[in-house]
Amino acid sequence: MGARAGRCTIAVDTMGGDLGPTEFIRGLLYATEELKLDCNFTLVGKGRLLERLLKVRKLHVDPSTIQIHHAAEVIGMHEKPVQALKKKKDSSMLQAIGLVKDGKADAMVSCGNTGALMAGGTLRLRPLEGVDRPALGIIIPSRKKPCVLIDVGANPESDATNLLHNAVLGSNYAKAALGIEKPRVALLTIGTEEGKGNSLINKTHTMMQKLDDIIDYAGPIEGFQIFDGNVDVIVCDGFVGNVVLKSSEALFGFVGSTIKEELVRNPKRMIGAALSKSAFRDMKIRLSPDQHAGAPLLGIKGNILKTHGSSNYIAIANALRIASQVVKHDMIDTIHAEINQANRLVQTPKTEEASTQESN
Amino acid sequence: MGARAGRCTIAVDTMGGDLGPTEFIRGLLYATEELKLDCNFTLVGKGRLLERLLKVRKLHVDPSTIQIHHAAEVIGMHEKPVQALKKKKDSSMLQAIGLVKDGKADAMVSCGNTGALMAGGTLRLRPLEGVDRPALGIIIPSRKKPCVLIDVGANPESDATNLLHNAVLGSNYAKAALGIEKPRVALLTIGTEEGKGNSLINKTHTMMQKLDDIIDYAGPIEGFQIFDGNVDVIVCDGFVGNVVLKSSEALFGFVGSTIKEELVRNPKRMIGAALSKSAFRDMKIRLSPDQHAGAPLLGIKGNILKTHGSSNYIAIANALRIASQVVKHDMIDTIHAEINQANRLVQTPKTEEASTQESN
Repeated sequence: MGARAGRCTIAVDTMGGDLGPTEFIRGLLYATEELKLDCNFTLVGKGRLLERLLKVRKLHVDPSTIQIHHAAEVIGMHEKPVQALKKKKDSSMLQAIGLVKDGKADAMVSCGNTGALMAGGTLRLRPLEGVDRPALGIIIPSRKKPCVLIDVGANPESDATNLLHNAVLGSNYAKAALGIEKPRVALLTIGTEEGKGNSLINKTHTMMQKLDDIIDYAGPIEGFQIFDGNVDVIVCDGFVGNVVLKSSEALFGFVGSTIKEELVRNPKRMIGAALSKSAFRDMKIRLSPDQHAGAPLLGIKGNILKTHGSSNYIAIANALRIASQVVKHDMIDTIHAEINQANRLVQTPKTEEASTQESN
Repeated sequence: MGARAGRCTIAVDTMGGDLGPTEFIRGLLYATEELKLDCNFTLVGKGRLLERLLKVRKLHVDPSTIQIHHAAEVIGMHEKPVQALKKKKDSSMLQAIGLVKDGKADAMVSCGNTGALMAGGTLRLRPLEGVDRPALGIIIPSRKKPCVLIDVGANPESDATNLLHNAVLGSNYAKAALGIEKPRVALLTIGTEEGKGNSLINKTHTMMQKLDDIIDYAGPIEGFQIFDGNVDVIVCDGFVGNVVLKSSEALFGFVGSTIKEELVRNPKRMIGAALSKSAFRDMKIRLSPDQHAGAPLLGIKGNILKTHGSSNYIAIANALRIASQVVKHDMIDTIHAEINQANRLVQTPKTEEASTQESN
């Protein structure tokens, strides 16, 4: 578990994505040549296919840094997770997770079936002691700087302790992936006045205030503040986070297609659009989720990163970059220690809790 | 309660918005002259101020259609709802609600303190029998046509029955405000496979399937489908709906400001932007929430509509338009009947419920 001195090894489940293994090889090319990623890679999937694809693509890296690990099966996007995991022991996903489990890789990246990846990762690598439910953290763009949104779907039925753990997990992820020394952590709610939101949020808010030694809690924020960039980590339940993430991606696409429709409505607009074309390209680069692809399943004994099923090579390359950063930062031991410290801090003796409530 | 033959009367709380009563008078002007709204209006607020504003603006409507109802107090945006309602009996908000209660107005519109409006409306007008918790419905744009999102914040702690009621309320609102004969109703979840989402969603999904006689249930949808426009009503908990609504508004603004930044980065882009300027104006008109402002608090014995605190005159005018449509459609009696029918349909006898579960 954790980082090693020297080069890190990333296991890549090349078979699960919508665009197939070719896109993974393109992603690998982009990661090594454009992002200058200095890692070893173990490509997991159909061996002969991968060999052929590597030959065609001609990567300008030391061939010894790329290994192929054959796996005969693929878990499909629409298979039922638990059944698929039971049936397909030789799937690229389970084999790649196995490499992390056996210490042969420091992290694995997959854009396959999310449910299977989360269940497989949790079952094979196990949650860290003290963590009830792992969480998916993701980096989103904002007006000022990128920030972490956690959980975006691993646990759609959170209690206050789960949300508290998300805060610790997200804070560590922001340190590792965004290089922020003391991330400011906010709790997503509706109406920031005391007592608004719902009972889960109010309970979590009270508990969060006890974590001063571990996280920098900035208090609750509302939906309209998500893209302000005033905080580094936004904590929420997996149901809410998933809906926010997916509706935001959808809205981004919807706004984009509406602008396009309007820009081709008459010749004057079309000339204008041609002249300012690069502005839209740059805007897309700034806001595109591809720049921050790779959502780690946090709170387990190993580094597993999920990328979007439809990830293109840029998204895949960025996921590999995030994976290497997570490995270099070696956050698993710190997370373990901090989760247990958090659990101790909120386990207030009954009598003390009662007097705290009275004083409120 | 409900619509009357002839002109409808809308009570307007002119004092609560961020932009003050002047914006309401501009909104009234726009509603009568541009949207050709043919209603009576009772402007509630500081009498002499309203008289002066009306004189300055010179509305080209029969003066007898506009009345002023003096109210000496104003509930501020940041006042605690219940305390404010207790203290400020002569507030413009409570007075306007009172006009609906006393049958002197068919609907009231306010952009004041949301919490106070929801609490005041619920306490003074009372929920319809059979409705546990009223819900705020709002119209959002989509790729194909506008649709209703319900609840966007009235009830941040819903159970399955509340969500079921939201479906009935939202379906009736889509009929009234969007003129859809048989609205298709979806349930917002994460992962549309059977058993995904969370226990609340799964329970609601099972109950929704029993409402064939009342609503056209289209099944669950995910966050990425919100702006597709394939359904007419999207049902969710008030916490989730509020976060989606506010984060979407924020993202829309964020994308807009990023495009602006990119468009002024060099002279070529600036010329292009100048030529295609009208495209952005039209895009904004198509997607702006101002076009569909006015969220009714559904499930109570009267028509109360909330508009955004920062509503401009266009948003206010559209809220008045929606209010008049809701009154004309006379949906309160239908809602009452359908809610009670829904309650009967889901109250399956224990034995039958058990056998249904087995057959699943």
